[in-house]
Amino acid sequence: MSISMYQASAPRFARLLRNLSAILAKAQAHVEAKKLDAAALTGYRLFPDMFPLTRQVQIACDQAKGAVARLAGAEPPKHEDSEQSFADLQARIAKTLAFVESVQPAQIDGSEAREVVLKLRAGELRLNGVDYLFSHAYPNFYFHVTTAYNILRHNGVELGKKDFVGGF
Amino acid sequence: MSISMYQASAPRFARLLRNLSAILAKAQAHVEAKKLDAAALTGYRLFPDMFPLTRQVQIACDQAKGAVARLAGAEPPKHEDSEQSFADLQARIAKTLAFVESVQPAQIDGSEAREVVLKLRAGELRLNGVDYLFSHAYPNFYFHVTTAYNILRHNGVELGKKDFVGGF
Repeated sequence: MSISMYQASAPRFARLLRNLSAILAKAQAHVEAKKLDAAALTGYRLFPDMFPLTRQVQIACDQAKGAVARLAGAEPPKHEDSEQSFADLQARIAKTLAFVESVQPAQIDGSEAREVVLKLRAGELRLNGVDYLFSHAYPNFYFHVTTAYNILRHNGVELGKKDFVGGF
Repeated sequence: MSISMYQASAPRFARLLRNLSAILAKAQAHVEAKKLDAAALTGYRLFPDMFPLTRQVQIACDQAKGAVARLAGAEPPKHEDSEQSFADLQARIAKTLAFVESVQPAQIDGSEAREVVLKLRAGELRLNGVDYLFSHAYPNFYFHVTTAYNILRHNGVELGKKDFVGGF
């Protein structure tokens, strides 16, 4: 017995993207209920040289679509990083989800040993599919989704870990 | 082609636990260099009803050993939650790593459909091995490792995402 690369990737990213969307919806409701300036949250950074909420969400989306595309041997679709409002971020997640869910199991299955080439600031990084998924895409994706959550929690938005993990 | 449950679990948790250990070592060096009270970091919470750094590390460890043990059909070893210092947290990670690395591939492989029963505050949760790993253990584990990192970054410890993801 074993598991497929598809089982381990696309539906898992999709699940967390949905949770992130629900978390941002709660944040927007919080802003409206308290009559806050939404930019106080969307532009908030946990430390001056960290990224603000908007960028955390953009990168989480990029990691998900990048992983699914690269495992399928395709070029990730380009999404401009122009989001500012909560509505913009929801639209970004929605188009990422649409792409993630458009990729078929047969395109991803068998990608364990497929070479993935990442162009990073430090140079090219070549990994096989399984190491790329588990040791690069996953930690990066979860890093940015969790940091988005932590930015909101730190600012008093009422969320719990169940919002992050999702229900069963 | 496909991947095994072992490939998708124990070595991935071990990698991130090692990264977490290196992150905490940098935090301890920061405390010593700046002559700070270590408890200002180990006891820090991003929000009053969130867990402090010590508890984030304990739960990350519990998620890793719990996942590996449950997938292997074994009872997770019990570790008392008595850590206070950075040295204590390093010891906690070290014993977690020793357990995670003691479990053999043959014990975990084939656990895709093995029923995992979690006793949560809300009641019992029954999941098959693959959903438990990808939709419960992974998000929980990454949540706490990332929150530990964010607590330290928020307090000015000089870390980068490479410390979290690890090098290749």
